[in-house]
Amino acid sequence: MVKFSDFAQTLQSSDIAALLKLTEQPEVISFAGGLPAPELFPIEEMKKVDVAILEKEGRQAVQYGTTEGYVPLREEIAKRMKQAFFVDCKAENIVVTTGSQQALFILSQILVNKDDTVLMESPSYMGAIMAFDPVCPKYTEVPTDDKGMIPEELEKILASDAKVKMIYVIPDFQNPTGITWPMERRKAFMDIINKYDVVVVEDDPYGELRYDGEKLPSLKSMDTQGKVVFLGSFSKIFMPGLRLGWTVANPEIIDKFVKFKQAVDLGTSTFGQRQAAYFINMFDLDAHVTKIKALYAKRRTLMYESMQKYFPEGITFTYPEGGLFTWVTLPAYMDAKEMMPKVIAKQVAYVPGGIFYPNGGNANHFRLNYSNMPEDRIVEGIQRLGEVLKEELR
Amino acid sequence: MVKFSDFAQTLQSSDIAALLKLTEQPEVISFAGGLPAPELFPIEEMKKVDVAILEKEGRQAVQYGTTEGYVPLREEIAKRMKQAFFVDCKAENIVVTTGSQQALFILSQILVNKDDTVLMESPSYMGAIMAFDPVCPKYTEVPTDDKGMIPEELEKILASDAKVKMIYVIPDFQNPTGITWPMERRKAFMDIINKYDVVVVEDDPYGELRYDGEKLPSLKSMDTQGKVVFLGSFSKIFMPGLRLGWTVANPEIIDKFVKFKQAVDLGTSTFGQRQAAYFINMFDLDAHVTKIKALYAKRRTLMYESMQKYFPEGITFTYPEGGLFTWVTLPAYMDAKEMMPKVIAKQVAYVPGGIFYPNGGNANHFRLNYSNMPEDRIVEGIQRLGEVLKEELR
Repeated sequence: MVKFSDFAQTLQSSDIAALLKLTEQPEVISFAGGLPAPELFPIEEMKKVDVAILEKEGRQAVQYGTTEGYVPLREEIAKRMKQAFFVDCKAENIVVTTGSQQALFILSQILVNKDDTVLMESPSYMGAIMAFDPVCPKYTEVPTDDKGMIPEELEKILASDAKVKMIYVIPDFQNPTGITWPMERRKAFMDIINKYDVVVVEDDPYGELRYDGEKLPSLKSMDTQGKVVFLGSFSKIFMPGLRLGWTVANPEIIDKFVKFKQAVDLGTSTFGQRQAAYFINMFDLDAHVTKIKALYAKRRTLMYESMQKYFPEGITFTYPEGGLFTWVTLPAYMDAKEMMPKVIAKQVAYVPGGIFYPNGGNANHFRLNYSNMPEDRIVEGIQRLGEVLKEELR
Repeated sequence: MVKFSDFAQTLQSSDIAALLKLTEQPEVISFAGGLPAPELFPIEEMKKVDVAILEKEGRQAVQYGTTEGYVPLREEIAKRMKQAFFVDCKAENIVVTTGSQQALFILSQILVNKDDTVLMESPSYMGAIMAFDPVCPKYTEVPTDDKGMIPEELEKILASDAKVKMIYVIPDFQNPTGITWPMERRKAFMDIINKYDVVVVEDDPYGELRYDGEKLPSLKSMDTQGKVVFLGSFSKIFMPGLRLGWTVANPEIIDKFVKFKQAVDLGTSTFGQRQAAYFINMFDLDAHVTKIKALYAKRRTLMYESMQKYFPEGITFTYPEGGLFTWVTLPAYMDAKEMMPKVIAKQVAYVPGGIFYPNGGNANHFRLNYSNMPEDRIVEGIQRLGEVLKEELR
């Protein structure tokens, strides 16, 4: 028997993970993960990219690099921050991370003490909860409606809790709900947080994947006090397996972040960073994103229309203007986790909604992903889900 | 002013880091880093490897993967554990990590609480100290001689401190000293730790790089109680920029380790893992290691002979049978850190030894790396160092 640390003792196997394991066979129509469509990965282009890296940079491309990351990639990210997120920044404000998951982990470590408060939307990304858990924070869920965090509720909490250190938000096509904060919410949010000593972590892996409506400025672009830390990712616009994300922050935060990252993994793959940088230079990442958007928009619309067609009355769901997910709400007496075995028996999978609430409860929701299933399977899967829902509705 | 966590407030810029920054220009003869010789990186082979990955596995190679790692790579590692380290294990006992730095970080997080004791050789690897620091342990340095940790001293500490949770050791060609534990020390060590409730972290990035003498069994190969966690790395036998290491442990530890790693970065680059696995299958990693050993042995011997020739009497240094480093001991009144500006003025660099002691002190040492400098620069650099030493000796 090993004596684990107090925190490690809390790491238990989840029954949901065990259920989702059952859904990994290829015959299952899985809306459970958050996987990008692999058919769009630029495999042929990557052959040219990899050879070019090895020819042009050779040894340097596979030697140890700096913890901050490969400068030409950080310069490309700075351009992208301007063009896609309206943020003025330079390479020195940017750190490349081993996925934006790593940034979530590091930020909680450098900003939050045990029993400090972390604010989140309700619900919020389960991977962020997992990343923050090791510092043992108190989670306060800020009441959230179909336009995102409710400013008045946020202000009430900030005014009454002096231990709030970090506010974690996903204003664009939120995971899990698909909801996007409109402009007035963003403004109201920034007005409030500017009055308090807190750091905002704006997680925006889907921001470039908007299918309708107008692009909105990121919170970081409205940040006049250096309070917002912006997290971007190559996982959804390029390829997730390279594990490449980035963090934009003020110099004070970047300094601590880099020192902590050094302890965690010394630095992100030097070759992987070049794969992204060379692809951007040799090919057209914007055109690639356009292709992704066209496919996902079609799948989003098809899933939405299929839910309208096959889901019984009394079930509601969001219409995401972008991103990868839609969020289904059942009548309060229903439990999406308890329903899972029946859903799995029909060879379909979703993620039950309860795990997206750091403080539990809210069993009457589930999250659906539409980016990773071909069109015919989306229709078939939603139809089967609709059958289970009809059986379960009172 | 950002309010950082208590730990982050302790992350300060080191004056040594600032000094070493000065030594990064190409004209400096740097013995400071721990970089492999880039001229041996198999760049031409990697072109074929990368194309083969993309042709054979395409999309799968850049999609999200499991946290444990790519199974064919873990199977290759299992074979390597048997052949190079005499350890019987299977893929399920192995997790691929983002460099073995990540393993050091995660192990301390899952094994050690604040104020628990971590034992280390004295001196020990500074990167490990950096990795363990976030859990705020108490470090106890076990007295260490030219054969490694002294068993009697270890036993005394274990018998008197019930809070020892982890013992961190580098029995092969230690960083920073270059010392290797002989067989009787390994046996004595295992006999002692088997009597206590502790986990041993055996860090072995250099084990395959032995230039003379006979290969010794790893502690893990002598472990009958599942108490030893073995850390391996592709950084020194293949390429460090890919950030690939591995951890071998009993199932109980692997389970917690994987759960924690998921929070930290979800998983290590799926493409990077295939780069190692395909290289092993398409080319001959053992032959590659043989080439590395031939070059490093030459450099090791040359540095040793140059020190004998150019260092004044009163200065001692180790003869490493393998690995990347030798360790220089000055008379007690000398301070290697204070001497640095003079050394840098002569365009040479080392790492002052004090930072390898978790509790400080021991200023009269420095570490030299011989793997990353061509032969003529090794001789020239040691000669210049010798001049400074002669000036500084009383």
